[in-house]
Order: sequence, then C-alpha cells, then structure tokens
Amino acid sequence: MHLAWKLWLETEGKVFGPGPAELLEHVARSGSLRKAAGELDMSYSKAYWTLRALEDRLGFPLLTRPVGGMSGGGSTLTTEALDLLTRYRALEAEAEVTLEELFAKHFG
Amino acid sequence: MHLAWKLWLETEGKVFGPGPAELLEHVARSGSLRKAAGELDMSYSKAYWTLRALEDRLGFPLLTRPVGGMSGGGSTLTTEALDLLTRYRALEAEAEVTLEELFAKHFG
Repeated sequence: MHLAWKLWLETEGKVFGPGPAELLEHVARSGSLRKAAGELDMSYSKAYWTLRALEDRLGFPLLTRPVGGMSGGGSTLTTEALDLLTRYRALEAEAEVTLEELFAKHFG
Repeated sequence: MHLAWKLWLETEGKVFGPGPAELLEHVARSGSLRKAAGELDMSYSKAYWTLRALEDRLGFPLLTRPVGGMSGGGSTLTTEALDLLTRYRALEAEAEVTLEELFAKHFG
C-alpha cells in the first residue's frame, strides 16, 4: 500500500495545479504555446483558453505576447508566471518528501 | 490564495480515502450501515457495494456481520477497520498542518 496525493492552489475555485504547471513548463521549454499544446496532445485552442481563464483568476499575464499575438511568433513566460511555477514546484517537491515521511510514520 | 489538497491510499488503484473514511465513521457512530448510508444521502446498496469492493482490495473485513448478515441487525467496525481509520485520520491531520506550513513558506 502506498500514499497518493494531489495538491493545487485555490482562490474561489481551483486556480493552479499539475495541469497548468505542466503546460507552462512546456511553453517555457519550447518557446511556443502551439508546440506546448502539441506535446501534451491538447488542441491549441484548449491550451489557449486554459491559460486565458487562468490569467483571469490569477490577475496577471502568464505569457508575453510578441508581435503577432499569442498565436503568432512565439511565447515565453512572464516573470510572474515563472515565479508562480517555481514556487509551486518547490512546494510540491517538499510536500512529496513530507507526506511520504508521514505515511511511513503511520503505516510503515 | 490558499492551498487545497487531497490524499488517499493506493495499492493497484485507489484503496482508501475521504469517502470510505467518512462512511466508516458513520457506521461506527450509528452502529448500522443502513443508517450510515442514510446520513450520507447514499443508497444502502451503494454503501454496501462500496464496502464490499473495499474489503476485496484491502484483503480484510471492515464490518462485523451479526446474525442476519450485513443487512440485518447492525454493524460495527472490525478491529482492522478501526485501526485503518485511525491511522488514516492521524496521517491526514498531520498532513494538513505540514502542508499549510509549506504553503506559508513558499507563498506566504
């Protein structure tokens, strides 16, 4: 038997979790929302609207929009998006270690 | 912004989490699976089959079955079920404290 868990950030409802984190990481690596969507087997429009909704809930932009707009030249993460992503992954990594310790304590 | 999380126990797939824990607690309090199901707005047959499937995955009985069978006289938790429930709630309580600390550390 092992421990399984999920964590995410909320304001009114769900704000940020594993899905958006993965999408942002792919944008950061590929420099393009279209490529990121493709790598994740997601339609470009789903990826686009996911990020637009996320920006509304967070209140800050996630992608820089170079000439041609979001669908044009390419996309990189804003400083705020990188900061959020870094904090989220750090929280998740420490949560994993801590939760495994607690599981071993109670079920080991 | 605040932290939200969920944790459960797995073997092959999901084994034990918030739903079964709540159901067992209601059985323990009311002494009856039928009453527990009613209190949780769940049909008796859904509650019954939830616990039967859970017993298969866990490999031990959760409810004592007094004369009349599971649907008869009343139900109390087996020692193993009480032990599982207690460990699970203790794990969950400590996880809550720890995860809030980590959230404050990274997003505070």
